[in-house]
Amino acid sequence: MDFTSDNICGVSEEILLALSAANQAETAAPYGGDRLSMMLNERFESLFGKPVSVFPVVTGTAANALALSACVQPWQAILTHEKAHIEIMECGAPEFITGGAKLIGVAGLDGKLSVDALAQAVRDSGQGCLHRSQVAAISIGQTTDAGTVYTVDELRAITQFAKENGLLVHMDGARFANAVAALGCDAAELIEGVDVLSFGASKNGAMNAEAIVFFNQELAKNFIYQAKRTGHVVSKARYLSAQLLAYIENDLWLKNATQANKAAQYLAQRLNDQEGIEVLGRVESNLVFASCDQFLVEALKEGGVGFYSEPATADGKQRIRLVCGYSTNFTKIDGLIDLLHGVSMYRKAA
Amino acid sequence: MDFTSDNICGVSEEILLALSAANQAETAAPYGGDRLSMMLNERFESLFGKPVSVFPVVTGTAANALALSACVQPWQAILTHEKAHIEIMECGAPEFITGGAKLIGVAGLDGKLSVDALAQAVRDSGQGCLHRSQVAAISIGQTTDAGTVYTVDELRAITQFAKENGLLVHMDGARFANAVAALGCDAAELIEGVDVLSFGASKNGAMNAEAIVFFNQELAKNFIYQAKRTGHVVSKARYLSAQLLAYIENDLWLKNATQANKAAQYLAQRLNDQEGIEVLGRVESNLVFASCDQFLVEALKEGGVGFYSEPATADGKQRIRLVCGYSTNFTKIDGLIDLLHGVSMYRKAA
Amino acid sequence: MDFTSDNICGVSEEILLALSAANQAETAAPYGGDRLSMMLNERFESLFGKPVSVFPVVTGTAANALALSACVQPWQAILTHEKAHIEIMECGAPEFITGGAKLIGVAGLDGKLSVDALAQAVRDSGQGCLHRSQVAAISIGQTTDAGTVYTVDELRAITQFAKENGLLVHMDGARFANAVAALGCDAAELIEGVDVLSFGASKNGAMNAEAIVFFNQELAKNFIYQAKRTGHVVSKARYLSAQLLAYIENDLWLKNATQANKAAQYLAQRLNDQEGIEVLGRVESNLVFASCDQFLVEALKEGGVGFYSEPATADGKQRIRLVCGYSTNFTKIDGLIDLLHGVSMYRKAA
Amino acid sequence: MDFTSDNICGVSEEILLALSAANQAETAAPYGGDRLSMMLNERFESLFGKPVSVFPVVTGTAANALALSACVQPWQAILTHEKAHIEIMECGAPEFITGGAKLIGVAGLDGKLSVDALAQAVRDSGQGCLHRSQVAAISIGQTTDAGTVYTVDELRAITQFAKENGLLVHMDGARFANAVAALGCDAAELIEGVDVLSFGASKNGAMNAEAIVFFNQELAKNFIYQAKRTGHVVSKARYLSAQLLAYIENDLWLKNATQANKAAQYLAQRLNDQEGIEVLGRVESNLVFASCDQFLVEALKEGGVGFYSEPATADGKQRIRLVCGYSTNFTKIDGLIDLLHGVSMYRKAA
Repeated sequence: MDFTSDNICGVSEEILLALSAANQAETAAPYGGDRLSMMLNERFESLFGKPVSVFPVVTGTAANALALSACVQPWQAILTHEKAHIEIMECGAPEFITGGAKLIGVAGLDGKLSVDALAQAVRDSGQGCLHRSQVAAISIGQTTDAGTVYTVDELRAITQFAKENGLLVHMDGARFANAVAALGCDAAELIEGVDVLSFGASKNGAMNAEAIVFFNQELAKNFIYQAKRTGHVVSKARYLSAQLLAYIENDLWLKNATQANKAAQYLAQRLNDQEGIEVLGRVESNLVFASCDQFLVEALKEGGVGFYSEPATADGKQRIRLVCGYSTNFTKIDGLIDLLHGVSMYRKAA
Repeated sequence: MDFTSDNICGVSEEILLALSAANQAETAAPYGGDRLSMMLNERFESLFGKPVSVFPVVTGTAANALALSACVQPWQAILTHEKAHIEIMECGAPEFITGGAKLIGVAGLDGKLSVDALAQAVRDSGQGCLHRSQVAAISIGQTTDAGTVYTVDELRAITQFAKENGLLVHMDGARFANAVAALGCDAAELIEGVDVLSFGASKNGAMNAEAIVFFNQELAKNFIYQAKRTGHVVSKARYLSAQLLAYIENDLWLKNATQANKAAQYLAQRLNDQEGIEVLGRVESNLVFASCDQFLVEALKEGGVGFYSEPATADGKQRIRLVCGYSTNFTKIDGLIDLLHGVSMYRKAA
Repeated sequence: MDFTSDNICGVSEEILLALSAANQAETAAPYGGDRLSMMLNERFESLFGKPVSVFPVVTGTAANALALSACVQPWQAILTHEKAHIEIMECGAPEFITGGAKLIGVAGLDGKLSVDALAQAVRDSGQGCLHRSQVAAISIGQTTDAGTVYTVDELRAITQFAKENGLLVHMDGARFANAVAALGCDAAELIEGVDVLSFGASKNGAMNAEAIVFFNQELAKNFIYQAKRTGHVVSKARYLSAQLLAYIENDLWLKNATQANKAAQYLAQRLNDQEGIEVLGRVESNLVFASCDQFLVEALKEGGVGFYSEPATADGKQRIRLVCGYSTNFTKIDGLIDLLHGVSMYRKAA
Repeated sequence: MDFTSDNICGVSEEILLALSAANQAETAAPYGGDRLSMMLNERFESLFGKPVSVFPVVTGTAANALALSACVQPWQAILTHEKAHIEIMECGAPEFITGGAKLIGVAGLDGKLSVDALAQAVRDSGQGCLHRSQVAAISIGQTTDAGTVYTVDELRAITQFAKENGLLVHMDGARFANAVAALGCDAAELIEGVDVLSFGASKNGAMNAEAIVFFNQELAKNFIYQAKRTGHVVSKARYLSAQLLAYIENDLWLKNATQANKAAQYLAQRLNDQEGIEVLGRVESNLVFASCDQFLVEALKEGGVGFYSEPATADGKQRIRLVCGYSTNFTKIDGLIDLLHGVSMYRKAA
């Protein structure tokens, strides 16, 4: 039973079939000149309802760092949540790939940025002062790293603020599908005012495939050279493009995300019925955070359950994170609950 | 009929099967913690007969640039052939990923570096002079970009020179398999004295998979962080590792390379029988260079044949490059020859 | 009347004389090969009581960023105060010159880092986790940007913590002289356990001269190449070295700093006697922070007084910073007070 | 007797006086806000007859690398002479400060670039090919590192070529004054079609001062942030600006350069009268290259004469470089000749 992350799941059957199909062509032009890669822009334009330039890459870190490098100069800065993935989980990739731009962490409830906090950050940032990295972009996670999902209105407020302040907007959509599935809206609604989206697929059924989707076409000009000099232009692009096409074909991406979200809802509900464990906040996507008695955490780990946990606090509780993927089945969740239940029973008896 | 490059070929059936097999595991630890990734070092140790640290990546550019970044400091320099792939075909990736190290191009016949030329380059490089990037490594292509293959003795001379001068050795093995197949030797013989190898698979039947193979274990320490901050640590590593394992299992890599080399030999032989075209140099791997009458080049392009060509010289000849891959069949080559033949006939008649 | 910064002051007579004297030599070897530059290490060894390697540069930003680049790899991180100069006033220079290392801001009272906060930051930093920039150094300001001065014991605690955790220690000593003067201790006491010091002179009577002083000799190896590739090795080094030698000769640096500190004490005392203004915290160096009625701030600015001020808070107060330099005379301070006094009188009358 | 370089000379009296004068102001706004710095643009506009943006820095390496960073993106390339200072004497600074742009060395007689060679280099560079760093600028030395001087017509041809090909032009004018003095033309004539000039002063009587002069105003936008993040914005800018103003005031720069050039002419003429030594090429500036018998080179070095020499060739000759500065007096040159003469006499006698 592993709830470490959604990237532990395998690859959707549809994706594997698409790879086989792509392999039927005896030869295909490399570096994106193939038939499938040439279809990417059009298909993603249908998805988002506006012109796009799509560049496939293999990691979310590459997608984020490269997308940001198209938004800012090395002497500029990016506002992002202080716990954002780009700030704390990418080993400095955004700073490196942008040539040295600064990430400025902004605090915010539930992993979200508020316009008030952004406005304060801009005021504090010293625009026009030669000693300060000049704020030029905002990066938001949708889904956030806290598992929360911005509403359409919240996004609108941020992109509006960005526009008024001459800032570009990057969206880290490693779990974009989960957000769309959660909100039940059109993908197009979530990217209004967004300049570039890291559109994740790896965590939701693809092999190792992400798409950098530029809505701001100006940013895409010459982007291929930047991608190349970071080693991120694959030669056999057809095998990335095939995945991405299959991923959005017939709403596979939404089906997978809906499934993962449902599993998380079920998990949260069952956890809340257990003693010694309490789900924290509303579960909006496929991530479940909970406060858990220390002995339960230990028991789960001994039982071979995979998940992240933070150090215990004074009251003997630990904050844990459990992630459901598109292939997480309810039986596995029941198994987890059984294990928790067993431990509690045993402990009471003892 | 496409002879543009070996990266236009598809993926070997064995590789596709390995991907399917890897997908059987319902879950697998991410970032190299999975069972298949954990097998990489051991399997490559068997291949090379010595301890190694293996890091899978998806592009040859990433493999080369990252490997070099483990060899040199930003204020150091790398000697390489003036026409080496890292010097002219990677859009500055080695310079960027190393943090600014300098590539110093060295001239050499047949795309090869000689010890004499290297020695002169070191003398000219200003070792110890604060104004000069300090030479710290040599990068050699095996197979070279000219399609030639270093003999074991030639390699030994270079690695010996490197050792005597305190320089590290990187081998760009994008077509390493073709070299081993051509020489009919053990892989182990070709990497004696080599510190790190970019072991290519994409051009020879894999999907998008290369291995950075450290023989110098010291260089591999902390390498994972460098790989991460360039966006080159894939989350679902099992799908890269599965490919690399299948690639070396049962000598698939050598079978594929042997096939590509044979096709090139056949192509060269048939080309030489044609009027107006002359194969340049010995064909040692899967690359064929030829001098070709300008009207033939035009006719081929009109006929839809894909290949690289240089501008015409004063005598109306053009240097062209034709590449065979593991799946290039002889029928296709015969088709090319027929086309050439037809054009010549037609022209004579006209 | 200008209290904007200590860098608005001129150059001490002794420094100008040293430049003239250095000019007497008809020729001098460039790039640090001259007689004066060759004396730097010895003289600074006398000052600090231990072997050092000294590299003169012209800006504090260069000193800090280059010193840090000798401490950390691009994939590593530096803990520093969240309001430290390197974090917010150097436009990303540390990130750029280190090749992308991450600065992690740590909160702390009075601009100081505590061992508790550092320990928590290390725990939170994910040492050993491939997704996180690996903490490898601590950077402390002495004097801090809040104008406070670490006691010898506080420093000892931090350097002890660093040692226990395998972290290097950089000290930003742009106002190191003011700290030594304030504490009345030996310079040697303040750098115990410090690996490299940015020893400032520009703010305290030199022209544009700072010294990077390595106590950890290992870090100085090959440093000259790093300095060169950032454009920071001046050709006529004698004119930098002459300044630095004159600066520490006959304790000029301490005399200047003592004078600046005294002026700040006098300024603080006189400010506290005024209505509508209150000095914040103890004045430990040459920086005075005060809470000031908004109308007074406006009146001062209209009166042509130079200083930094923060936006007004809800209670109509503004935080202001007034800096005294080595040449700030008491008459100027009295002039400032008279102006404040006059404004208050006038307002009462009105 | 030292002919190592022109940077071994001291500082012109006028420059020292200007520093003293600048020190009379009790305070001055930092970072270029002072009265003298504010005069820079206007004065340089008079000199060059067109609008400029001037940024003072302390080294030629910083001037060149920063100027180039304003011309090219990290994925672009710069054409320059294969023996240019930026290519071989700056330890990779241009590559680093530009964020990784590639220098492409172009061969050319007498240290000069020809339009033919540039045109060939552009054709070979792969414009539009994603694998190649895209050529975006040309950097020319005026004076060149071979001591030669481009004529106005030669420059015109290059800048014309650049314009036609959409390339920017950087001029490395570390010895710009010597070129103007040699040609006897207006400074304005030499910078027609040039986008940015590294205007050297350090080698010709200033302390450590160079000016980056943007004629292309667009490139200067936001340049201050780039200068800051490399540590090249000095706080007490008045002391750099004072030097630059004094340097161009009353044609000091031309007087100094004329003097250095004359000394070189005299040196060349006297050398040519000696046996065993032959001046190579025409002496156009303040650099003298000569072919010298090996035993003479040794004798000179033993005699304490400073200069650069290349290894001996098969015929027992060594190429040497002797540089005259603005303060090199003829008596020193006579002394050198006497020494050579004495050695020859002695050898004949022996």
